Amino acid sequence: MPENKIDLNSDVGESFGNYKLGLDEQVIPLISSANIACGFHAGDPTVMKHTVEIAKKNGVALGAHPGFPDLMGFGRRSMDATLDEIKDYVTYQIGALQAFAAAQGMALQHVKPHGALYNMAVRNPDIWRAVAEAVAAVDGRMILFVLAGSNRRDLEAIAAENGIRMAFEFFGDRAYNPDGSLVSRKEPGAVIHDHKAVAEKVLKMVRQGRVVCRDGSEIEMAADTICVHGDNPAALSLVKNIRESLEAAGVEVAAPSTFL
Amino acid sequence: MPENKIDLNSDVGESFGNYKLGLDEQVIPLISSANIACGFHAGDPTVMKHTVEIAKKNGVALGAHPGFPDLMGFGRRSMDATLDEIKDYVTYQIGALQAFAAAQGMALQHVKPHGALYNMAVRNPDIWRAVAEAVAAVDGRMILFVLAGSNRRDLEAIAAENGIRMAFEFFGDRAYNPDGSLVSRKEPGAVIHDHKAVAEKVLKMVRQGRVVCRDGSEIEMAADTICVHGDNPAALSLVKNIRESLEAAGVEVAAPSTFL
Amino acid sequence: MPENKIDLNSDVGESFGNYKLGLDEQVIPLISSANIACGFHAGDPTVMKHTVEIAKKNGVALGAHPGFPDLMGFGRRSMDATLDEIKDYVTYQIGALQAFAAAQGMALQHVKPHGALYNMAVRNPDIWRAVAEAVAAVDGRMILFVLAGSNRRDLEAIAAENGIRMAFEFFGDRAYNPDGSLVSRKEPGAVIHDHKAVAEKVLKMVRQGRVVCRDGSEIEMAADTICVHGDNPAALSLVKNIRESLEAAGVEVAAPSTFL
Amino acid sequence: MPENKIDLNSDVGESFGNYKLGLDEQVIPLISSANIACGFHAGDPTVMKHTVEIAKKNGVALGAHPGFPDLMGFGRRSMDATLDEIKDYVTYQIGALQAFAAAQGMALQHVKPHGALYNMAVRNPDIWRAVAEAVAAVDGRMILFVLAGSNRRDLEAIAAENGIRMAFEFFGDRAYNPDGSLVSRKEPGAVIHDHKAVAEKVLKMVRQGRVVCRDGSEIEMAADTICVHGDNPAALSLVKNIRESLEAAGVEVAAPSTFL
Repeated sequence: MPENKIDLNSDVGESFGNYKLGLDEQVIPLISSANIACGFHAGDPTVMKHTVEIAKKNGVALGAHPGFPDLMGFGRRSMDATLDEIKDYVTYQIGALQAFAAAQGMALQHVKPHGALYNMAVRNPDIWRAVAEAVAAVDGRMILFVLAGSNRRDLEAIAAENGIRMAFEFFGDRAYNPDGSLVSRKEPGAVIHDHKAVAEKVLKMVRQGRVVCRDGSEIEMAADTICVHGDNPAALSLVKNIRESLEAAGVEVAAPSTFL
Repeated sequence: MPENKIDLNSDVGESFGNYKLGLDEQVIPLISSANIACGFHAGDPTVMKHTVEIAKKNGVALGAHPGFPDLMGFGRRSMDATLDEIKDYVTYQIGALQAFAAAQGMALQHVKPHGALYNMAVRNPDIWRAVAEAVAAVDGRMILFVLAGSNRRDLEAIAAENGIRMAFEFFGDRAYNPDGSLVSRKEPGAVIHDHKAVAEKVLKMVRQGRVVCRDGSEIEMAADTICVHGDNPAALSLVKNIRESLEAAGVEVAAPSTFL
Repeated sequence: MPENKIDLNSDVGESFGNYKLGLDEQVIPLISSANIACGFHAGDPTVMKHTVEIAKKNGVALGAHPGFPDLMGFGRRSMDATLDEIKDYVTYQIGALQAFAAAQGMALQHVKPHGALYNMAVRNPDIWRAVAEAVAAVDGRMILFVLAGSNRRDLEAIAAENGIRMAFEFFGDRAYNPDGSLVSRKEPGAVIHDHKAVAEKVLKMVRQGRVVCRDGSEIEMAADTICVHGDNPAALSLVKNIRESLEAAGVEVAAPSTFL
Repeated sequence: MPENKIDLNSDVGESFGNYKLGLDEQVIPLISSANIACGFHAGDPTVMKHTVEIAKKNGVALGAHPGFPDLMGFGRRSMDATLDEIKDYVTYQIGALQAFAAAQGMALQHVKPHGALYNMAVRNPDIWRAVAEAVAAVDGRMILFVLAGSNRRDLEAIAAENGIRMAFEFFGDRAYNPDGSLVSRKEPGAVIHDHKAVAEKVLKMVRQGRVVCRDGSEIEMAADTICVHGDNPAALSLVKNIRESLEAAGVEVAAPSTFL
């Protein structure tokens, strides 16, 4: 990761039919990589097309955001699917989004698993391998997004075996444990609400590759992309603040395909 | 259509989860083009992957068989979807299948809409245009399958506008009206069960480009592909018979991408 | 319909999983009959339970609001389902809601079909009969809600055949044609936005059983219930205004089971 | 459990739309309790209606067979749903089936959770309690079916707290461990294919309340109902054989509502 470039990614395209979710029109211009829901946990074909349009208009890179086939649970519930099923679900959803990208003359930059699938994959290398194999088989130029600071070596090895690149993801508004994992949302102080504190945290990670943990200790934390949210006006304001402080510090917000 | 080549196409990959439908393993070796369900009216990601595998193993060309999002109705019920929705549904489903094809080093040859979507598109040029635009935007090399003998000129004009090729489809086991349309299944004699009569009908269409209608009159009928079924042993036996009589007559069964 | 009582009904419980829709907590205290989505076009089991809870707490009567199995289209798209399928879909959805009512010691007061199913049923007596038969078979004490002013006699005859009561529905914020039908939303002036005009219209219908049509003519219009919306703060404000003007005029807002 | 009566239960109504599963027409006449899928993991409204009809015609008691909302996985995959969600899913599905029963003048006798939900509930008392609470709240006269021989005391206590009866289920064609649990299907000898051996096992359980385990030891095993299958002709033949040997031994096949 070069010191003067960082990606901002956000989950978008999560509306479905008559249901609207997220401030996509406003958050997409602020980010460089869009993780677009693909119809299993959120999103529908028409939402996907519109989201690709908005991203294209704003020069934002496209990524598939595949999840479990569980619209009722928004893909947030673990499902005991087999490795083959997971691989097939990821393949299917990538393809569906690729078609909308192709129809607008674009290609996908990346894949970031959603919700329970993401959490299961980060913890279970076999599941990560299933995801990586799906990505590699469909289009090995795509970058796989994953949580920074956890079992990084294992996951990098799996990506390398499959000949694909990974981008590591940092959460500016989340407290970290000394082992590099995120403090659980169930614990106090897990989410950081102070905009200034978040901006400082992001800048420290970008420039020094380090993060101050909740217990005050400092650890190494190299990441290529920062996960941000566009669910509500407060989240949007935080994204604006992160982007402005990055640019004020001479850091360019850019999609990882430009620097990985 | 050259006199010595004809395509045989069949709807396959219609199983879903625990539900098995069709004798895919047996019918696919007998055909040259496989219309593979894409998860909306039938098929699921795992079924799609397996169906692509079987087709690849047998050298059979792959086609997307997109339908309405109505698994409960098997895509056979008209839905009052907008043209944009139809276009997006077709785009989504083509893409999903393309990913499984790409993962196995293949590309899609064709697209054939399913059930109610097919029937609506054949009757309504606006719907046909929506389908054609989706196909053209995703990959203009794909061939669009459509019923022969009906409003052929209109449909050809729409395909031409969009720069895509069409393959016209003939039903060997269905009676025809003098205007080139199929006799409704509700009428007696609509479906021809005699294997010999079906084989003769197919051969006449292939060699002479003509069909004898139910009323005894004879009309022109140029088609590139014959629709066959693999739902049950009797259907399978009919396909075998058609294939054998074609080969005995020196007609090669071949995917339309080889001769269109 | 007695001159001093009228029902206010609203479609509620239309959220689904992570998707929130409608201001149910605020609109339910203002109405007397709640039309609760049953999981086909909107609503999920958890949403249904919560909606029954809110209605119970506010002394509001419960009604099933069954729709087509089309979450992606919010039940607003006509589907070419058979009469038997429609009957079975209505039966299923009524039962699902009955269980949540029973679990809270309540029973359903009414059934109001949703969206495309409602529109199709109002126009097609065969579909209305399928709905009425389902209602009568499951629990003949339930009241069926239907648009006032259209083909009222036909629909009443069907309900009578099945031994069930009907409540006729009036739209205070919609313009009427001289034949008693609603002016299409595609035409100018179809929706009335002026709160005072709506309140006057509602009062005239309640007291005199008459409505002034768009062309200035006046027709008879007897209704038992007024359809109101809780989608947004403006809609909510209109409901409050209608309720206040009714009460100021000495008209009691009451569920139809209390006066039919 | 009286020595001269035993229930035979089977999962039925598992078809969906165009997909047919199970030999319901043939197996239902052989059993006394039908576990009917309710649309989440299998079954659709039309299938439910027909299944209730067949059961009614054959004097077979009706039971709801609720599962997870996972048609693609046939309800066989564990899902990390909350206890409230599980309770709501069970409530919804019971209600849906009750409506079809009511429409034919019948009531539900029992509830038997399906697949992953059944397995999770048997292992986790909190999940069992959620199911029991749903059953008790909707209609406390319904009997809850559960695996015999496992953590029976815990489950009975939970049912008693909720004021509902339980029926314990025995598998005649499965080998048992000495702790009363079923031998995993992954182990050799888990499934018993010999019809005579199955019949003997069933009779021993019915008359003596005992079962010979895989290791030759003998344990107590009191059950009220025997789970049988109607998936294929071989399964059907086994059911016939079980029924005949029971009747030959003077044991009456009867629904548990007649003897519990």
